Formats: sequence, structure tokens, C-alpha cells
Amino acid sequence: MQGQSRVIIENIEPVVSDGKYYAKRVQNDLLHVAVDLVADGHDTVNGCVYFRHADDKQAQSVPLVEAGNDRWKAEIPLKKIGFYSFAIGAWIDQPLYWLQGLRKKIDAEVEVSVELLDGVAILKNTAKKASEKEQVWLNDVMSGLTAGKLTVALKKKIQGKKLEQILRAYPLKDFETRTEQEYRVWVDRPKANFSTWYEVFPRSTSPDPARTGTLRDTAALLPRISDMGFDVLYVPPIHPVGELNRKGKNNNPSAREGEVGSPWAIGSQYGGHKAIHPELGTLADFDFLMKECKKNGVELAMDFALQCAPDHPYVKEHPEWFKWRSDGTVQYAENPPKKYQDILPIDFETSDWENLWNELLSIALFWAERGVRIFRVDNPHTKPYQFWGWLIDKVHEKYPDFLFLSEAFSRPKVMHQLAKQGFTQSYSYFTWRNTKHELSTYFKELTQGPGKEYFRPNFWPNTPDINPYLLQGGSEHAHLTRFFLAATGSGNYGMYGPVFEQMVHEALPGREEYLDSEKFEAKHWDWNLENRLTHLIKRVNAIRHKHPALQQTLMTRVCAIENEHIFAYFKQDASGNDNMLMVVNLDPYATQTGWVQLPLNLLGLTKGSIDLVADDLITGNGYRWNEEWNYVELRPEWPFHLFHLHS
Amino acid sequence: MQGQSRVIIENIEPVVSDGKYYAKRVQNDLLHVAVDLVADGHDTVNGCVYFRHADDKQAQSVPLVEAGNDRWKAEIPLKKIGFYSFAIGAWIDQPLYWLQGLRKKIDAEVEVSVELLDGVAILKNTAKKASEKEQVWLNDVMSGLTAGKLTVALKKKIQGKKLEQILRAYPLKDFETRTEQEYRVWVDRPKANFSTWYEVFPRSTSPDPARTGTLRDTAALLPRISDMGFDVLYVPPIHPVGELNRKGKNNNPSAREGEVGSPWAIGSQYGGHKAIHPELGTLADFDFLMKECKKNGVELAMDFALQCAPDHPYVKEHPEWFKWRSDGTVQYAENPPKKYQDILPIDFETSDWENLWNELLSIALFWAERGVRIFRVDNPHTKPYQFWGWLIDKVHEKYPDFLFLSEAFSRPKVMHQLAKQGFTQSYSYFTWRNTKHELSTYFKELTQGPGKEYFRPNFWPNTPDINPYLLQGGSEHAHLTRFFLAATGSGNYGMYGPVFEQMVHEALPGREEYLDSEKFEAKHWDWNLENRLTHLIKRVNAIRHKHPALQQTLMTRVCAIENEHIFAYFKQDASGNDNMLMVVNLDPYATQTGWVQLPLNLLGLTKGSIDLVADDLITGNGYRWNEEWNYVELRPEWPFHLFHLHS
Repeated sequence: MQGQSRVIIENIEPVVSDGKYYAKRVQNDLLHVAVDLVADGHDTVNGCVYFRHADDKQAQSVPLVEAGNDRWKAEIPLKKIGFYSFAIGAWIDQPLYWLQGLRKKIDAEVEVSVELLDGVAILKNTAKKASEKEQVWLNDVMSGLTAGKLTVALKKKIQGKKLEQILRAYPLKDFETRTEQEYRVWVDRPKANFSTWYEVFPRSTSPDPARTGTLRDTAALLPRISDMGFDVLYVPPIHPVGELNRKGKNNNPSAREGEVGSPWAIGSQYGGHKAIHPELGTLADFDFLMKECKKNGVELAMDFALQCAPDHPYVKEHPEWFKWRSDGTVQYAENPPKKYQDILPIDFETSDWENLWNELLSIALFWAERGVRIFRVDNPHTKPYQFWGWLIDKVHEKYPDFLFLSEAFSRPKVMHQLAKQGFTQSYSYFTWRNTKHELSTYFKELTQGPGKEYFRPNFWPNTPDINPYLLQGGSEHAHLTRFFLAATGSGNYGMYGPVFEQMVHEALPGREEYLDSEKFEAKHWDWNLENRLTHLIKRVNAIRHKHPALQQTLMTRVCAIENEHIFAYFKQDASGNDNMLMVVNLDPYATQTGWVQLPLNLLGLTKGSIDLVADDLITGNGYRWNEEWNYVELRPEWPFHLFHLHS
Repeated sequence: MQGQSRVIIENIEPVVSDGKYYAKRVQNDLLHVAVDLVADGHDTVNGCVYFRHADDKQAQSVPLVEAGNDRWKAEIPLKKIGFYSFAIGAWIDQPLYWLQGLRKKIDAEVEVSVELLDGVAILKNTAKKASEKEQVWLNDVMSGLTAGKLTVALKKKIQGKKLEQILRAYPLKDFETRTEQEYRVWVDRPKANFSTWYEVFPRSTSPDPARTGTLRDTAALLPRISDMGFDVLYVPPIHPVGELNRKGKNNNPSAREGEVGSPWAIGSQYGGHKAIHPELGTLADFDFLMKECKKNGVELAMDFALQCAPDHPYVKEHPEWFKWRSDGTVQYAENPPKKYQDILPIDFETSDWENLWNELLSIALFWAERGVRIFRVDNPHTKPYQFWGWLIDKVHEKYPDFLFLSEAFSRPKVMHQLAKQGFTQSYSYFTWRNTKHELSTYFKELTQGPGKEYFRPNFWPNTPDINPYLLQGGSEHAHLTRFFLAATGSGNYGMYGPVFEQMVHEALPGREEYLDSEKFEAKHWDWNLENRLTHLIKRVNAIRHKHPALQQTLMTRVCAIENEHIFAYFKQDASGNDNMLMVVNLDPYATQTGWVQLPLNLLGLTKGSIDLVADDLITGNGYRWNEEWNYVELRPEWPFHLFHLHS
């Protein structure tokens, strides 16, 4: 113990689970660090943040600045992707304490000759660290102090800026307290915050109804996908589909001859997770798809689904990675009493777990080497959390630009734990948040709850697994508003593309499953179809690409409006220059009106100084607003405003 | 890393500052531990709390029980004073998982022959740990399982209680996750939660106006103090008062001949912190006072004030423990431009800090050896926090029944930091919380904020340093209500006795300082005085001693009542059997009425089942209440109810 240290450091932000996990940011963000510094007595406290990127040889430091109530703040520029780490230092600043006390006494016209003398020894220490030029200046001050007389010239120097600046530039950190722990922040490339996903089953992309689609057919759709404003193409698994216990149409436990099965039942005689399903093409076709993606400004997101069909090569090669039952059969997936015979879960409790982990990592690296930089991870919550923490770190060591989307529609703490382990983005409860109250509460939780440091939501109105009750009526209003909320509510959103666009909505009775689900059969879609929804998608995606306020999620604030059917929210970019206001009529049947409140503090406005133009970027209508509360009126046929607020 | 461990442990309660500090409880409390256990998949999770008292050789364990949303809870009985520590263990419970899956399948009438066989290996492992009798029973179950047929007898055993009980009694903790850290809880004797303080200056206790009081005069007051219901007598420092730069009446910088000075300016030619001021008596007199305290059921709280008068022996013996100025003089206390020349602060940045700390500790131990078990610590926030953490731990090692009251009327984070370092109780902002809104907010912060684990308030309506503006008018209503709120709001409360009782209220103009403060002069009080306030004090103190609900602070809840002048709050003891409702009219001028809401959930009542008697223990009036909201009416002359609620 260093008993002379007198400053206590507490309540550091951002810190996730006491520093066990890390906060997440994107490149070029400013990291806002805040901390309590508490010292005994009245002496002057000072502190700084030491930080470094993992590649930096030396740490840099930025001063902490007092923000009231013993809270101190600093900003760290995050210029590179990868891990940053930071620590806090704090100390009693004797030179500043002397200067501040002296100034107060001079102001109070108290005799200060001894105080002047006291300063000589203090400034001597500072001078040792200062530049030559500053030393000359300090020597001059010191001779004044030594004389012990408060001349007009000396008083001017004591009260001037320069002396304090020098004392702050070369702090004497005697008995500094330093945090033992280094806190980490992971910095992603910007796409972690802003991405627009489109999901397509490659086997359903054939232009010829007589055959199923291939990777080359999928590549042919890229110009359309790109033109609609999507920048991520997510494809369900493209590996060989298991033949043993293959499922048929509508989840039938045994497929009939010719049925294609679920692409998530991975592995057959044709290979496992590093192979391409023969009917989709070859690795060369995959490379072609990757090349076409690049050409169209779209990234391919592969499905990382760590389960095996009963005929996956692993089952024979590594029987110790699976559970075997008393009758000698291998254990299939189950959630008693439900059984999933076409899928074997991997037994992560195997004593061979180290080889298992390395093999699974090699799958990720295999695709990374072929250029893949995004995984949508299937059901991560059925594999151990610490495996994900390890795997994501290992992939990031080699490919720090790799992004992972967690597909866990599970309990809140399960979803948060996965995000803490390192998933870049997470599917979210947005899919079931419909009413104004539900949306308000959820927006607030995501942007202001503890998860804001590590849980980045991705909003999906539907997925192949979820045909939400609200969309099952096939209502155009529901499809328009759910799309609009997803695309303007979150920086990251996606859709299960053709099904959503075409408002396909038939469900298995009483369930949120699609009837004749594409999970178990190949489809043929009309890729030339256009409707009000596809037009809106294209328009809103283009607006998202122009407005940085829409390229992030955290700076979203719900706005007051006294109408339970109208949901309004405001977004602002980090610079504060881009300000967007979204207003949605959630009522499918009636026109709704109300007065929406502007967030004046965020806009830097006060009552009486308001002079804004609210441009609806979808309709092209503009309004001049001079009040805090402004009238809106929305018909159910066109139930939203997407306002750009500017002067 | 143990890659096979699958359960994540998070959000443990109670934990203070990530486990750096400790939560506080009192003897015979139940410690409520709560924790998130999150595992992948659907397997059955199980967990326990390992705990031990510092004197225990072996840890015990209690099972954690699921409480919804992945939260788990357990209760630990705290039977002894001193440190307890606890850790969490959690694992996938394979035997329970097998049993629960089997039961579901049996309920769903699924074929289970393989599941029965699977159970044999599992039960074999449990049987190894079970008692002989249980082994016999388990062997019987296993032969049933081996046969692979679900007979009526076997089904009954699978669905019965006994099998599950055995599996829970002997859990197989394969791949258990255990918290690395042990979390500590400090257990005090009950007085930490329930104490009633009375402050007296010994030099003002003389029955003879011609001389100042002594420790023997103080002892003579004990029967009265005890009779009024106080159990702690707190005396300002009784050490030799400095003669150099001694202060005079009303803080005059230089005392006139014969003035007594401030008792907090400690040390003179007669000795320092281990000596008694000659005018107060001798160590023998001190021992006599201690004996008389014991006889009267009152504990002596000494003032632990670590500063020195300029003529304190330390200044000559240990000049390195003080700061010396450029002119060769010793640095006195200051808060620029204010100067306190009668007091020298100790320089805790001295390089001789280890000897200094040990010497200061020896003061505490000196008085502890003479039987003292309570310190009121003067201005702890002007000495380093980690010094206090060290000193309190050291004293507790030898005297675990020692209590420390922190006298820091400072910024919130300063006060909390001191409490985290180990202070048993803290002076609080109660002294300035007057309106209903202020009181409600403060009660909520104290009982439900993060400080509830470590910050125990002590409510004082006044102190020698604080003559609150509200009391300066001398209003009887103000004195009655401030006393009542202190005594029923907090388990620990105190008063600067004679001044408060006699409603002395003259102040220095515009300041919260007493005019002619007792800090700088000896007084003569009429110790036989009785008034409405002294009668109330005696009555309420007697009620406090009878009602466990009033002997604690945390289980206090503010009750709704639609009148801004009436403040109502409810208290309940740990058993739930003692229920008290306090209602206070804060308006000094008018009768106020309103309907107060009973906390039905805490009372275990529902609307329609209410049949309570509300006995006002002060007036003796009783009311029968059958509704959730009940009418109250309070005149300013007698502005409170102290209801005991019972059936």
C-alpha cells in the first residue's frame, strides 16, 4: 500500500461488468470517459486518462476535466479499429493548490509574503519538466517570489493564464492513484453501427421455374439489391444439406423424394461447414458471388450455424464431439418433449473441447480467408458463452473488421450476455414491439439502459422464423410502418426480403410461422415486382445513406405528443448538425393529429429563438416551425413524416 | 480456462464497488444474496452460495433458488459479528436435467425406454455421494431403469418428491463456474442499526455556577439521560485543550485570560490524545465515568479528532508529521482565505506515514482498552480515505464490536466514500431536509439507493456546529416535528442535548452557527428542566425501545397522502410482525387533513380483507381501519401520529 495516495477513483464509465467485458464503439467515435475522483480535504485534485490502441507502443494521456459533483470527464479519439484500453490516474496537484490558494488570498487582500516564498520550491519542480523557454519565464517568476513582495508585475503573472497553463502542462503527480485494471473498448468499422440487410435464400433465386437457384443466380440479383439501398446480403447456410432425417415441407419430420430440406441441417456426403451445397455451385461460384458483391457495394453475410445433420462428416470423424445415448444412437436436438431429429447439437462438454473449439474456429477463418467479413450466427445461445468470447477474439486478432450478428431471440439476460461476449450486433425484440408504449420503452432501454455500451440492436420486421401476428393480416399499413420504424429507428436493420416486400403473410394457424415456409422448400419470386412498399424502401434507404443521424442508434430520443396513436422520435448525429424527426401514425384505420414537442436542448434552441424548417424528405413538403410544439396530421394511407430539421 | 464450464455468473448482490468494499449488516440479520445465472441451451442450471465467517474453518453452502428472469436468490443467516465472505458456484445439473426431461416426456406420453436407460449412469454418480439408506432406495430405482420399462411403480418414483430431493441434496457439480472473488459482509452488533445519542459538553455539566464541569459531574447526569431513553452519551474531546492560539468566545481568534477554548484544539503541556484535560479530571475519573455509564445502560462515545493544537506534544516529538512553511512556522489549518490558527492539520503525505498511522491507531486502541466501543470521528473527510479503511479494520480485528460515527457534513460522494471505508454510521443531510418533497426523496435515497448496503444514516436535528435555520425561530412546532422525524425516521438518531431540549436558538446573524456557542465557552444548564419536548422525547424513546420496526432504517417506505403539508411513512421489522405508521403535519400554522394510503402489500393485506387497529402510542387513541385510504387530521399544536398497526 502507498499510504500517501489520497485520491479515490470510482464509478468509471464506460465499463462493462466491472471490466470483465468491453464497451463497443466505431472508428472515429469520441470515447466519453467519466469517473468520480474523491479526495480528502480541500486540496486541488487533478487527473487524467491514459489510453492506447493495442498496436501502440506507448500510452497517451488526456487531462480529466471537472464536471461537478466530483465527476470528471475526458474524451478519447478512437482513430483505429481494434482494442483500445484505458486507465485512470489522479493525484493532489500541489502546484495548482498553491496557486489557487494564493489567488484567493490576494483577492481577499490577505498578507501573502510567506505564500510567495512557499511557491519557489514548488515552481522549481515544475521548471525541471518545462521547456527551455518556459524555464526562463519561470525563473523570472521565481525571483519575484523569492523577493517575497507582491509587486504589480508579479501579481499580474500570478493571476494570468500562462502560469496556470504551465502548471497544468507539467503536472507533478506525487502519490498518484492509478486504477489497477485497464478497461477495454472494442472499436469496429463503421458498418457495425450502420448496415442495411437483405435476406435471400440462394436456392430460391432461379429465374427458371424448372430448377432451383444457384450462387450465380443470387449474384445476378445484386444490382437490384444494391439499387434498393441494401449493403448487406445475408444468405442462410449454403453448405451441403443433410440427407439423413431430412425435413419436408412445413417441417414434416421426413422429407419426400426430391425435397430440399432445411439449409440449417448442415453436412452430408458432400461435406460439412467448409463445403458448398453441390446444387448451389462450387467454391469458384462462391468466389464469383463475392466478386459481384464487391462490384455492387454489397457485403455477403454468411450464416455461421454450428450444428450438424446426422450425416455430417464430423459425426464419423469426431464421435466424441456428440452425445451418445444408452442404445448407441447419437443424441439429436430436443427441447422436451419436442424433438429435432435432422439436427445434432455439438456436445461442448466433451473432454476434447480444445480440438473442437479450434476446428470451429478454422471454419470461421476458412471463410474469412475467402473474403467474408460478416457472420449472422445461428442460435448462438445454444453454445457456451465463453466459447463465443474466445472465437470472436481469435477472429478479431486476424480480422479486426469482422462483424458478428447474434441470432438469439431469447431471454433478455441471454441476449445481453452474448453481446458482452463480443457480438457486434444482435437481433432484437423490435419484431414484437408494436404499440407506442412498447416502442417508447424499448427505444429508451436500448439507447439509455446499461446495454448501450455493448448491445447494438438490429431491427427486423420479419425473419424466416418469425411471421409476426401484426403482419399476418397482410395489411399494407402494417408493412409500411414496420418497415419505416425499423429503418429509421435503428442504424442497423434488415428484412427477410422477398417475403416482406411482397407482403406474403399466410401463417401456420395460431403461430408466428410462415405457411409453406421457405425454410423447407425452394421458392420462385417475381424479382421485378414493384409496389408502394418497394418504392418506400428505396427512398428511405437513400435518405439513410445521406443522413448521418440515421446511421446510428444511440442518439435517439422519443418526443412527447399527446396522442396514443402517434409515435415520434428524434435522431441527431455526433456533430449535432444532422437532425431528423420521425412521426408515425400507428393507427391503421383513422387520421390522427397532435402536437409534437421539439427537443430544444438537443437542438441548442430556446423558446423564442426557434426558426426551423421541417422538410419531409419523403413527400417533399416543407414546414416553417417557430414553436416548441408543432401540429402534425397523418392519414393511415401514408402514415409517417421523415423530417429533416434545419434552419 | 475450463472450456467446459457453461454457466455465467453476473450482477451479484450485495456487492459494493465491484467487491472492493463490503456490505454491512447487523447480527442475526438474514443476508439476501441475489445473482444472475445464465447458461446456454435449455439444460437445467443449479447454483449455491458458499459462505463463511472469518473464524470458521470451513465454508458452508446454501442452495440458490430461481426467482424468475434468470435471477437466483439465497438467504444466509449472520449469526456472529465480524467479517463474513461469500462466493457463488453454478453448474449445469445433468441429473436434474435428465429427470425434468423424462417427466415432460412421460406427461406427453412419448416413448422413454432409452431415457430410462440413460438414467442409470446418472444415478450411479449420485448414489456414490448419498447416504447408505438412500443408496438402497436408489439401487431399487436403478434396477427399474435398467429394465427399460416404465412400470407404474417406476413412474411413481420418477414423479415423486424423493428422487428429486436426493438429486438436489447431492448435486453433481461437473464443470462448476465459481466466482474468483470472495465478497465480504461486515456484521456489526445491533447497536449499529439502533442507537439513541445525547451530546453533552462535560465542562458544562457543573451543578455549581462558580466552576466548570468535570467528568464526575457528567457521570452524575447519567440517570437522567438514561431515564429519557438515550443509550449513547457523546462527549466532545476531553483531552487537554491547546493554550497556543486558543480561541475565545464566538470564535474570537485570540482568547482572553481564563477562556476555555475549543475542545477540538487538542494538546498542550498536559498531554495529547491519550490524556485527559486536567480541569475535567483524571484517567481514574474517566474510568469512573465508564463504570457509571455501564450501570445506567448508556455507552460513552468519545470524540476521535485527529488534529493538534500548536502546543500538542506531537509537534515537537514528530515535526515531520506537520507541514512547515518557508518562514519556519508550522502550517495551520486553512480553507483559503479562512484561517484556523488554533489547529494544525496532520500532514498525511509525510514520508513517515507508517509510523504516523501506527501512532494514531494506538490512540484508538488506548481508549478501546479502557472500555470505549464508540467513536464519533471528527471531520474524517479531511484525512485520507484509505487511512480510515486501514484504521477501522485494525480496530475491528481486536474489537469487532467497535462502532464509528462519521462526522462529515460534506459532498455526497465524500460521505459515501467514508461509509465504504467502514464507518458504521454517518451524520446525514437530514438536518437540512425539511419539506415533504425533500424528506420523501431523502428517505427513498437512503433506503433504496446504492448506499443502502453500506451507508447507515444517523439523524440529528442539530449539532454544536449546526443551528439550522428552521430551528432559529425557536418554534416549538419545529422542535417537536424535527425531533419526531429524527427519532422515527432513522434507527439511529441523536441530539445536541441541552440546547435542543431547551430550544436555545439564537444564531450568529445569517449563519447556521449558535450565538455564544458552547464550542468556545463552558455553559450552565438547568438539568431539571421539563417541557412538552422533553416529555415527548422520553415517550418516543420508550416506544422505540419496544418496537423493532423503529430500531432500523432500511425498511421505511413513504406513504401516499394528497396533502403537501402531511408527510407519512411506514416502517416494518424483519419479521413483518411489527408495523408502524408515522404521520406528521409539517405546517406550523394550520390544521391539515388528508387520506393516507396503507402499504397493503407490505402488510400482507388485500382490499376487502383489511381489518386493522391503528393505535396512536403517544395519545393513546385507537382507530379501526377497514379501507386502504384512511382519514387523518393533525393540529399544529400536536402535529403527529405514531401509529402501531395491528389486527
